[in-house]
Amino acid sequence: MVSYQEMSYTDLKAKLAELQAEYAAFQSRGQKLNMARGKPSPNQLDEALSMLSVLPDDQRPLDSSGEDTRNYGTIRGIPEARTLMGGILGVPAENVMVGNNASLNLMYDQVARAMLFGIAGCKPQSEQRNRRFLCPAPGYDRHFAISAAFGYQNIPIPMLEDGPDMDQVEQYISDPAVKGIWCVPKYSNPQGITYSEQVVRRFAALQPAAPDFRIYWDNAYAVHDLYPGSAETDHLLNLKTASDEAQNPDIWLMFASTSKISFAGGGISAIASSEANLAEIEAHISIQTIGPDKVNQLRHVRWLESLGGGAGLALPGLKRHMQNLAALLAPKFQAVDKILAQDLDGLGVASWTKPRGGYFISLEALPGTAKRTIALAKDAGVVLTEAGATWPSGNDPLDSNIRIAPSYPSLEELEQASQLLTICLRLAAIEQLLQERV
Amino acid sequence: MVSYQEMSYTDLKAKLAELQAEYAAFQSRGQKLNMARGKPSPNQLDEALSMLSVLPDDQRPLDSSGEDTRNYGTIRGIPEARTLMGGILGVPAENVMVGNNASLNLMYDQVARAMLFGIAGCKPQSEQRNRRFLCPAPGYDRHFAISAAFGYQNIPIPMLEDGPDMDQVEQYISDPAVKGIWCVPKYSNPQGITYSEQVVRRFAALQPAAPDFRIYWDNAYAVHDLYPGSAETDHLLNLKTASDEAQNPDIWLMFASTSKISFAGGGISAIASSEANLAEIEAHISIQTIGPDKVNQLRHVRWLESLGGGAGLALPGLKRHMQNLAALLAPKFQAVDKILAQDLDGLGVASWTKPRGGYFISLEALPGTAKRTIALAKDAGVVLTEAGATWPSGNDPLDSNIRIAPSYPSLEELEQASQLLTICLRLAAIEQLLQERV
Repeated sequence: MVSYQEMSYTDLKAKLAELQAEYAAFQSRGQKLNMARGKPSPNQLDEALSMLSVLPDDQRPLDSSGEDTRNYGTIRGIPEARTLMGGILGVPAENVMVGNNASLNLMYDQVARAMLFGIAGCKPQSEQRNRRFLCPAPGYDRHFAISAAFGYQNIPIPMLEDGPDMDQVEQYISDPAVKGIWCVPKYSNPQGITYSEQVVRRFAALQPAAPDFRIYWDNAYAVHDLYPGSAETDHLLNLKTASDEAQNPDIWLMFASTSKISFAGGGISAIASSEANLAEIEAHISIQTIGPDKVNQLRHVRWLESLGGGAGLALPGLKRHMQNLAALLAPKFQAVDKILAQDLDGLGVASWTKPRGGYFISLEALPGTAKRTIALAKDAGVVLTEAGATWPSGNDPLDSNIRIAPSYPSLEELEQASQLLTICLRLAAIEQLLQERV
Repeated sequence: MVSYQEMSYTDLKAKLAELQAEYAAFQSRGQKLNMARGKPSPNQLDEALSMLSVLPDDQRPLDSSGEDTRNYGTIRGIPEARTLMGGILGVPAENVMVGNNASLNLMYDQVARAMLFGIAGCKPQSEQRNRRFLCPAPGYDRHFAISAAFGYQNIPIPMLEDGPDMDQVEQYISDPAVKGIWCVPKYSNPQGITYSEQVVRRFAALQPAAPDFRIYWDNAYAVHDLYPGSAETDHLLNLKTASDEAQNPDIWLMFASTSKISFAGGGISAIASSEANLAEIEAHISIQTIGPDKVNQLRHVRWLESLGGGAGLALPGLKRHMQNLAALLAPKFQAVDKILAQDLDGLGVASWTKPRGGYFISLEALPGTAKRTIALAKDAGVVLTEAGATWPSGNDPLDSNIRIAPSYPSLEELEQASQLLTICLRLAAIEQLLQERV
């Protein structure tokens, strides 16, 4: 295979014409495909359908403490849901507060509290100047959108192979204006990177200049292995354990949800932290609401227990369920990878990740061609995540990152979309290479 | 019946001894009763138990537009839930955004947005000095707690027989520092007052000095009649209609929930307003969450439809269901009223409301005796809403208001608690009258 860079001008021209024909043929089919967001497929959601009927309608839904989940109260969530979410995050139930359907909401509200009231005895961050938030990039656009909405300057931190560039993180936090960092520590969005033990230990030991700096540890894919039980599974060091060892117990806030376990829009979420942080959070949330939807919390636990074989077996049930989801998801990741390899290997115009979990494949195109690739795909009916979305302010400095979300389309749709993607990527690459030679 | 004020010192002393004996007898029974909060009783919640199984587990829960409620998105809520909540509030579905389980959360977040980002093109209220919020009192403590938490000065506005003193409201809003007013316009908390047509029209026509002033219209008891279908039912003029007529379309924000319809902790909530306001709200909420729990929204509509007899019959179903709840609640209100009348009529030490809906009876004791009454009751095992709670900062200037929440206890418990309450109230009254004569 000759790389495009090594090809002659004439050969590139010929290849361009060939790809243009393929593109036109695809376009003429008039298909509409979407690989933009990490949405579970209907088939995945069907795996959780039994949750809908797990609470009997002839019995009061009481939690394990005897409280009626239908009524008001229990601001931190019901005991068994705290245990479940603690199991997912690897922290004790007493460090967990269980919320409604969106962990994003918990993160947003946490930054809002820091802004409005201040945290850790500091004055409200809205009254502090030049506030900054660290954003390992490429990363999750909705994280960056929160800190941007609150007026923080988002600082991109390079993602290395084992997590964010900790030299830079350690340097930045010596600035008291730096108030937080967004992390997806396991199967990161979009690269699928799991932070190494050393990276987690450096996070746990951070000594920020700002007492109100916090690590926003969004462990969204904590149990989302593509090959569960195999050697092809990542292990994330526990940040709570590590920060306790580093005598830094209040620096972390963990988040998780069942959005990619049960129902994307109808799951339960959790925030976990030290008791000092949780008490502060609870004081504010007690004004905001009388309590979370505990019925849905109980529904989740009972459902997972039913999959696990009985009372107290929610975590084994979760394990089985995640195996079922992996069986649906892994072939999709493999299908994309296979087509990318077939079409792009050796051309010198792309590299991509082979994640062992999570929801995304991160594709690095030739610098300067991501926008063009995504625009071409869109014009042929395939919607990808917007170019630059994985970077703060939507500004990918190299214009090279493309996020692929294989979960939602069917296998067949995914294959077609991936084929179109590689056509577009190659077209954009050749256009640029030809431009450079003019 | 001779009033206590007319009694001789000796007779009062004798009465005091008699009541002290009754109090001691009650205390010795060691009962624990609670009339503190407007919580639905387990029997009420049982009326909604069939909601738990209304979504079949062998069918994808699609909304009326064909969207899968299990997945992400649909930030304003599913169409049929917007129609339902619009029906409750008396506004078109397009003016409604349906949220998760707590309307309080929607109110809190709305004030938070005004604080953080500003509304209606104004600068953030957090940057505006001497911010004030109007609080018709007695009123709902959780409302007052929100504005207090955000640092607004809460201004009590007297409640008259037909709603807040609108002369005072109109005067206060000429001050640009006044940013909002808390209202429970129908069967108000705690008095059960429904604002008159004239009061609603004056609200609709308000011309506040602050462009970012809003009426927080918490129509929590919109369909919560105690005697539905009878002449003993209040009618509230529609604020949207009235403010449209007054060419003041953006001044109102309505709130409602099904907390006292389905499950107190597991219902759905709504915020309604003009499109201009909703668009502003949606822009922020789109950063905060990917969408509400639509499964629970669909569950609610389907459940009410099942009570109403079929698709599209959620509102008739709601009507039937509210009749069932009224049949449980009305006897409790009547039982309290009967005991209050038996024990207190003619003594000159108390008056109370006879609401036709809502969740509370408001009892006015002799000024200076509410705290003492509530403390005495507590020492004998009956928990009432904390004294002063119905006033901003928990400060009842006359120390006279006692809120009775009859919904949660059983009829028998309620009768015992009410008897104890009147004993305590009479004790406190006589103590005070004797003190005055010393």
